[in-house]
Amino acid sequence: MDRQQIEGRHAVAEALRAGHPLDKLFVLEGCKDGPVDSIVKKAKRGDAVIQYVRKSRLDQLSETGNHQGVIAYMAAYTYASVVEILNKAKEKGEPPFLFLLDGIEDPYNLGAIIRTANQAGVHGVIIRGRRAVGLTAGAARASAGALNYTPVARVTNLARTIEDLKKEGIWFVCADAVGPHMYEVDLKGPIGLVIGSEGEGVTRLVREKCDYTASIPMKGDVDSLNASVAAGILAYEAVRQRM
Amino acid sequence: MDRQQIEGRHAVAEALRAGHPLDKLFVLEGCKDGPVDSIVKKAKRGDAVIQYVRKSRLDQLSETGNHQGVIAYMAAYTYASVVEILNKAKEKGEPPFLFLLDGIEDPYNLGAIIRTANQAGVHGVIIRGRRAVGLTAGAARASAGALNYTPVARVTNLARTIEDLKKEGIWFVCADAVGPHMYEVDLKGPIGLVIGSEGEGVTRLVREKCDYTASIPMKGDVDSLNASVAAGILAYEAVRQRM
Repeated sequence: MDRQQIEGRHAVAEALRAGHPLDKLFVLEGCKDGPVDSIVKKAKRGDAVIQYVRKSRLDQLSETGNHQGVIAYMAAYTYASVVEILNKAKEKGEPPFLFLLDGIEDPYNLGAIIRTANQAGVHGVIIRGRRAVGLTAGAARASAGALNYTPVARVTNLARTIEDLKKEGIWFVCADAVGPHMYEVDLKGPIGLVIGSEGEGVTRLVREKCDYTASIPMKGDVDSLNASVAAGILAYEAVRQRM
Repeated sequence: MDRQQIEGRHAVAEALRAGHPLDKLFVLEGCKDGPVDSIVKKAKRGDAVIQYVRKSRLDQLSETGNHQGVIAYMAAYTYASVVEILNKAKEKGEPPFLFLLDGIEDPYNLGAIIRTANQAGVHGVIIRGRRAVGLTAGAARASAGALNYTPVARVTNLARTIEDLKKEGIWFVCADAVGPHMYEVDLKGPIGLVIGSEGEGVTRLVREKCDYTASIPMKGDVDSLNASVAAGILAYEAVRQRM
């Protein structure tokens, strides 16, 4: 993970506008005017660590000598392509084993899922671009370093990606609350495990593209499992079957 | 989950001193004197949601008419006893299936584990008292309601609790990074799954009391899995074997 330092109100605001999550933001203490306030708000939404510091500290951190009260560290997490993920499976000589996330919203869950993917031998994680969390600093932290090894691709239309990948011989398994238990579903061979969002599960359009559904047996009184826990349980049932 | 409202600086400070985690704390806007500052700090450490409000809002919320700038909601999460947990298994006519947590520190993980316990048919969760997170408001939120159904007991000495429970015929399985894979370990019958802390794993004293170790196969480049994900994977391997 590389880090890029950006300085000055315009540069930082521009990075945020372009959708680059900030890792860390240093702000001049007591500085609360409109532009700075708007930067702080957006950075918070993007899950950055905000630190209020004295001018002397900012001057010391500054590389340009013109920080205007804000210095940000932008993490250079780069998205992979779906093709790169498939190539990773080829290199290893293994049938593709993928995670597809249909709208995970919590960076902590996304990070934990990337970490699980890494340990379970999943070749890559495909996430959707809209109404879902991306590779924010919080997701990177929760991945505990796994983001440096496990490629993550972001696609605009998950249903279409599934259609394309079916042509490559990959089968898709939709995690569901009902239907056959995962123990009865064949999770060997080239597969993509499709995990829904925390609140809504897998969307109808994506579900319709899947070949099978697999459920985790639920004996409890509450609705469901935490999304990253459910992803881990499913992934390791696949690991067991693939051993 | 019942909620108790407490008002006034003395009452709120006293609740915090007694170790009762607050669910929510309302503080008068702009009020930053020593006693209030100390209450806010402790409440934050205990994972409470802090909200700064106007005097008119506090007056409206107040039941006593004497809030002195602070009103807190305290969640009445009660710990169960180990005996109550065993009785739950008896009532269901099932061999005891327990989680023992040796030092989970993150309330989000504790809550997710309680949620998993509920879904996997685990009869109760036993946590240790020292250097571990308890039933804070954050843990309750992350449990997604499961805390109302799955009993949690807190013990001072986890190793001694294991010794006692062995006399009841329960076998203990220590989650470990090495040793036989969980697929090869017998997880049927009366068992306690022992999960270590996020950073350190299971402590030596507790590990020595366990009958078996079971590992999750790790194919990755990073150290380990998220603690709540690991607990979920192990629990569901037990579910599979017990079906």
